[in-house]
Amino acid sequence: MSQTVREVVLARPIADPPRADDFEIVERALPPRPPAGTLRVRPLVLGLDPWVGQRLRGRHMGEPAPKPGERLPGEAVGLVLSSADPRFAAGDHVVGHLGWADEAIVAADAVRPVDPAQGLAEHLGVLGMPGLTAWAAMTQLASVRAGDLVCVDAAAGVVGGTAGQIARLAGAAVVGIAGGAEKVRIATERYGFDAAVDYRTPGWEAAVPDGIAVHLENVGQRVLDVVVPRLRLYGQVVLCGLAQHYGDGSVATLPVGPLVGKRAVVRGLVVYDFLPRLGEWVAEAAPLLRDGRLVEVRDTARGLDAAPAQIERVARGQAVGRAVVDLAGA
Amino acid sequence: MSQTVREVVLARPIADPPRADDFEIVERALPPRPPAGTLRVRPLVLGLDPWVGQRLRGRHMGEPAPKPGERLPGEAVGLVLSSADPRFAAGDHVVGHLGWADEAIVAADAVRPVDPAQGLAEHLGVLGMPGLTAWAAMTQLASVRAGDLVCVDAAAGVVGGTAGQIARLAGAAVVGIAGGAEKVRIATERYGFDAAVDYRTPGWEAAVPDGIAVHLENVGQRVLDVVVPRLRLYGQVVLCGLAQHYGDGSVATLPVGPLVGKRAVVRGLVVYDFLPRLGEWVAEAAPLLRDGRLVEVRDTARGLDAAPAQIERVARGQAVGRAVVDLAGA
Repeated sequence: MSQTVREVVLARPIADPPRADDFEIVERALPPRPPAGTLRVRPLVLGLDPWVGQRLRGRHMGEPAPKPGERLPGEAVGLVLSSADPRFAAGDHVVGHLGWADEAIVAADAVRPVDPAQGLAEHLGVLGMPGLTAWAAMTQLASVRAGDLVCVDAAAGVVGGTAGQIARLAGAAVVGIAGGAEKVRIATERYGFDAAVDYRTPGWEAAVPDGIAVHLENVGQRVLDVVVPRLRLYGQVVLCGLAQHYGDGSVATLPVGPLVGKRAVVRGLVVYDFLPRLGEWVAEAAPLLRDGRLVEVRDTARGLDAAPAQIERVARGQAVGRAVVDLAGA
Repeated sequence: MSQTVREVVLARPIADPPRADDFEIVERALPPRPPAGTLRVRPLVLGLDPWVGQRLRGRHMGEPAPKPGERLPGEAVGLVLSSADPRFAAGDHVVGHLGWADEAIVAADAVRPVDPAQGLAEHLGVLGMPGLTAWAAMTQLASVRAGDLVCVDAAAGVVGGTAGQIARLAGAAVVGIAGGAEKVRIATERYGFDAAVDYRTPGWEAAVPDGIAVHLENVGQRVLDVVVPRLRLYGQVVLCGLAQHYGDGSVATLPVGPLVGKRAVVRGLVVYDFLPRLGEWVAEAAPLLRDGRLVEVRDTARGLDAAPAQIERVARGQAVGRAVVDLAGA
């Protein structure tokens, strides 16, 4: 068990979306045995969501940006090397903000156990917070019914992709909106959406059908302006993310008049509210994932040194599917 | 029974909010007996809502503006003088778009019966569509609970005023927002609101409390900008009217980010959806109105000739309470 470990940290405070050269790798000494209430953990797979780029700039949920040198946010699945907490033992797998590191000491209270038989990276995707987000949107905030027309954007991503698949399993027809031919292809060919529209194609708006019963928003103004007028009466919108606006800090708005005319219902979703119900979703999703009725597409970088470039790709919208770093696979 | 009747009509198409001189009075010949399926009705009280000013310009619910000389919209309570429909008889009271007239022939299908023992003007206010709007907002779209903080704007008006009273009867604390000292006084002294804020007072925003559980919006941007940041977590907004924007056709918007952060729920309300349930509300409200637990404040002009000036006052936001024209009281 190494005494010195490598960790990726911010080299400086950042105000703009993260770029690879905003980071540096430092060496830290870790105690060989974790202090009481903590675990020594080896991160195996690190997840990099769009919100991480926001959080690094102090723009997520009111939480402060990590200071240069501090542990970076980002959920990771890890292997417990040694435990000083009765709830965990060496050999357990856990998920939590472990840091972008070879090894780390983390509070046992800050991680949750996961079943590696269900997968590793999957606990950062379909079986983790992004999948829980999709489930909460489609089944708890909105109510998708058989025959509904459902729209999701960021459709190649794990939230949009999983949400659309959940809607299809409920008997809905699903149209995805994504940027670029590859993402459109993933939505239809991998996730099985009924249709997908590339918003980078001029005139794409005309390809978005009328009569949308449920829309899940993860992008922002460019999609809202097109989808809200195409809601059916009593259509539902779940507001989740605003990836279009993370870069420049611009504000997305909803027009009030059309919402009244459509008798629309708009709900804001923060997935942390549903964390106590993650087990419920995992129990439902794990068999679906195992037998291929639910598909996860990942964009995997390999090795700790690749993490800075991978978060830059996420911030630029270049990652396709769930962006992770395989820390064991360098 | 007169053969010739007087009627107020548009003198010309209008593009701006109605002014008194946009109208003229014409004389019409009516048949002494109504044709089959119609009634001859004497309008007794004419209601003038903000939406009427919109409708006169073709800006309400996609319906066309009345052409110069055509019957004007606006619900009125009237007395049936003679009936050629088996569902009605002379002496019945009805409500519907009877026209701004001394007498009119109307389709029996286009009116509904009302009980004059419950009042006349009341069927245009608390016991009519505005009251139904308030009931639907507070009990069907939003769910007001005892101890909630509820906010309504246009607080001296019949929709806001009735909504706030419904919320208070449910055990909520109610803050009203209104323009001018008289309207603020009506909200607290007549409707019994816990507090009311005059948005014409500089710095009024600071007087709107935090922690709003339910907000009913009938004004627009000026209020939304203040109330949305003051919603409590899981706060509810019912979007109903946009009186601030009716004059200039500007657009009201909701900021997406705060709606997500608050996990807010926003619902658009169109009262016509609830018309089949009007009887349910009237049965509940009539006894409350009779014994004073529910109060209606009216702004009454007298006589048909006063209708044009009264709709101008409504369009200017000068009417205080439910604006009506007492056609029998000239």
